[in-house]
Order: sequence, then C-alpha cells, then structure tokens
Amino acid sequence: MVKLAILDVDGTITDSSRRIQESAIKAIRKAQDNGKIISLVSGNVVPVMYALQIYIGMKYEVFAENGGVMYYQNRIEKFFHKRKTEEFLKHISEISSARGIFTNVWRYSSMAFEMDSEDTEIVKAESIRWNLEITDSSFSWHVLNKGQNKGYALKKLMELHHIEKEDILVVGDSKNDLPMFVEGVNRSTIKNGDPDLKEVSDYISPMGSGEAIQDIFRKFSLI
Amino acid sequence: MVKLAILDVDGTITDSSRRIQESAIKAIRKAQDNGKIISLVSGNVVPVMYALQIYIGMKYEVFAENGGVMYYQNRIEKFFHKRKTEEFLKHISEISSARGIFTNVWRYSSMAFEMDSEDTEIVKAESIRWNLEITDSSFSWHVLNKGQNKGYALKKLMELHHIEKEDILVVGDSKNDLPMFVEGVNRSTIKNGDPDLKEVSDYISPMGSGEAIQDIFRKFSLI
Repeated sequence: MVKLAILDVDGTITDSSRRIQESAIKAIRKAQDNGKIISLVSGNVVPVMYALQIYIGMKYEVFAENGGVMYYQNRIEKFFHKRKTEEFLKHISEISSARGIFTNVWRYSSMAFEMDSEDTEIVKAESIRWNLEITDSSFSWHVLNKGQNKGYALKKLMELHHIEKEDILVVGDSKNDLPMFVEGVNRSTIKNGDPDLKEVSDYISPMGSGEAIQDIFRKFSLI
Repeated sequence: MVKLAILDVDGTITDSSRRIQESAIKAIRKAQDNGKIISLVSGNVVPVMYALQIYIGMKYEVFAENGGVMYYQNRIEKFFHKRKTEEFLKHISEISSARGIFTNVWRYSSMAFEMDSEDTEIVKAESIRWNLEITDSSFSWHVLNKGQNKGYALKKLMELHHIEKEDILVVGDSKNDLPMFVEGVNRSTIKNGDPDLKEVSDYISPMGSGEAIQDIFRKFSLI
C-alpha cells in the first residue's frame, strides 16, 4: 500500500506552461487528509519549493535543485555544495552559448543554464571531464554534483520516514526524473511523459500534465 | 470599468492557513483571459512572488516586500534598500523579544520579524525614532522604509499601465493593505477583513479568505 508519493513539479503537477492544475492541488490535499506523505522534488530553487509547500499546504519535506537541498519547517538542509557547479558554469559560458538563468541567485547546491542545442555535446563532454552531471528538466539545463539527483531525494525520504520501496510511488514526466524511477518502487508517468520513463513505469496515465495526478492517485489508492 | 486589479496574497487569495484557494486561481486566470491586468502585492519575498506568478500563470508585474521590490519577466526591480531595516532589526533584537524570520535571507528591501505582543509598543516607538515603518501582515511583522507600502505598488502600476484610479480595484484583508485603499480606486475587502478596511470599502464580500475573490471579481465585472 502506497504510504508516500514523490512528485515532480513542472509538467507533472503543472500544465506544459507551468500553470499548476487545480485538480492536482486537490488530489495532494486529499491524499494528505488520508494520511499519506506527499513530497515534491524539482530542479527549481528552495524558495520556490517553500512557496509551493505553503500555498498547496504540504505537510512534509520538499526538495529543490534535483534533491540537492531539502526544505522543512523553516529549515534548509543542503546536501551538496554549489562552488564546483558555479566554476563549471563560468567555464562553459566562455566556450559555448551557455548562460546562467535568473534564479541562480537563489541556488545553494547547483546551477541552471540555457544553451543553444548545438552546444549540448560539447557541454556534456566538459561535464564528464569535470566529474559533474548535467540534466535537462525540459525547462532549463542543470549542472549538478555527482550523485545529486532525484534518487537522492527518494533515499532521504525512505530514511526519514522508515518506508520501504514497495510503499512508495514516484511520478514524473521527464528524463531528470529517471533516477527516482528505481526498481521496487511504484512508478508512474503521464500520457506525454518521456519514453524512457514510460518504459519502466508500472502505470502510464492516459491523462496529460497536471491532470494525470488525480488519476494516478486513484490508481494507487491514495485518494 | 475595472481594467486592473491588485490583490493581497495571504488571507486574501489564500485561506487563513495560507492554502491557496482553487477558486481564486480560477478567477485570476479567467480575468486575465478577459484582458484584465491582475497583480499581486505581498509582504512576502520576491522568489515566493516569482513562484506564485509562474504557477498561477500571471502575466504582469508582481510586488514583494510590501511594494519594495517588483518582479517581471526574469527581472527584479528594487525601489528601496534593506541596510537600515537590517540595522533596525539587529537593534530591536537586542532590546526586545523581536527575532528575524527565516525568509529574511531572500529579502532585498526590508526585514520581517516576530515578537511577543507585549513588545509591540516599544518596537513601534523605536521605529518612529529610526524614521522607519513597521507593519503587521498578520503572518509576521515587517520593518520597512518610509513610503514603502502597498500604495507605492499601486502608484507604480498606474504609471506602468497608464491607468486611472477609477479603473483600478484593490482587494485586501488586513491593516497593511490600507495604503492601497486610497480614495478614487474601487476598494473591496472580505467577510473577515480588518474593520479599518471595511470602513473605506466600496464592497465587502459576504465570503471569506480565498473564496471571496470569485465573488468580488464578479461584482466588479472582471469575470
């Protein structure tokens, strides 16, 4: 029985233009009322996750920067440092079209950037040389420390709440959600989810971004 | 005819525990679809307003720190400095129970704090001596520069959009909304609004926090 669900934010509980879906808010609140633990994990910054946590009314930990930072009850816990990712961004800005995005001022453990698609290969190669990871949230690129991914957030939540894989549900729509789509957990994606996620999902909702949450929560008896 | 509406956030578009109301989100989106300009002004920090702007899907400027900072299209515009308010907070922390709140790390032009209610008078007296303003958003106290209030945000929006007072609607629920409740604009509060706001309001909705937005927008023909 699913006791804990971890949801990606952009494109998963929101529509494709990032507008949050009222039905997703409703489903999260209802699942919480049913005693379920619901968490969010996003590539976005801590204060944005803090805002979502307040305004949705979430009761447990939420994760920013792809699992690099956790927010809970007025406390920020940082699991990785940003120094190396800042230096990397500076470097690739010099050799490619990469440029940092506006929200980097609020980042604690990673950097986000945009770049022309033809530079993807060179930036990827550099990230390997630097022993860093880059990932595409489909809203922006992120440079992260080794091991800093949504799977890290999953492990943290399992430890904090003493919950086994079989009692966990993960929901996402894009490649950067893959590290939490591990064997043993209940995995679900949406109609417009990434093919890589679909391949390993236990349930693919026939509904799209935002709207699928209610359907998926029903499928796994959270609501 | 109302062309522009400025809404307070906490307690106005949210319920009393700050959970955003789905009907308020719906009303804002619908009013925008009808060509109306909808803005938010809050005592909260910029990245939180940035998050609300994205996830509600707002198209125009939003204001943080009681009008001290404006966010629009990946740009932060700061109208006041935080230095003096930081010094003030340090000072009152030494002579009273006042203590800064967690979100101050993300503030650009003011500071927020909590204090035991018996210290209100001494802190008020100090703010006058320092030529600063303190205000209670009912979620926390704020220390602000002289002239930094929601009326400042109102003036900014009038300038930016070339809109007259008679075409503006302001909606709020607490004392720190008073500076935008100026004569000539359409003023509306909610069932549980502050008595001072009720006294100057053109319309008091019979509905409470969050739920009133749809009713008020209908009353002023925004939706």
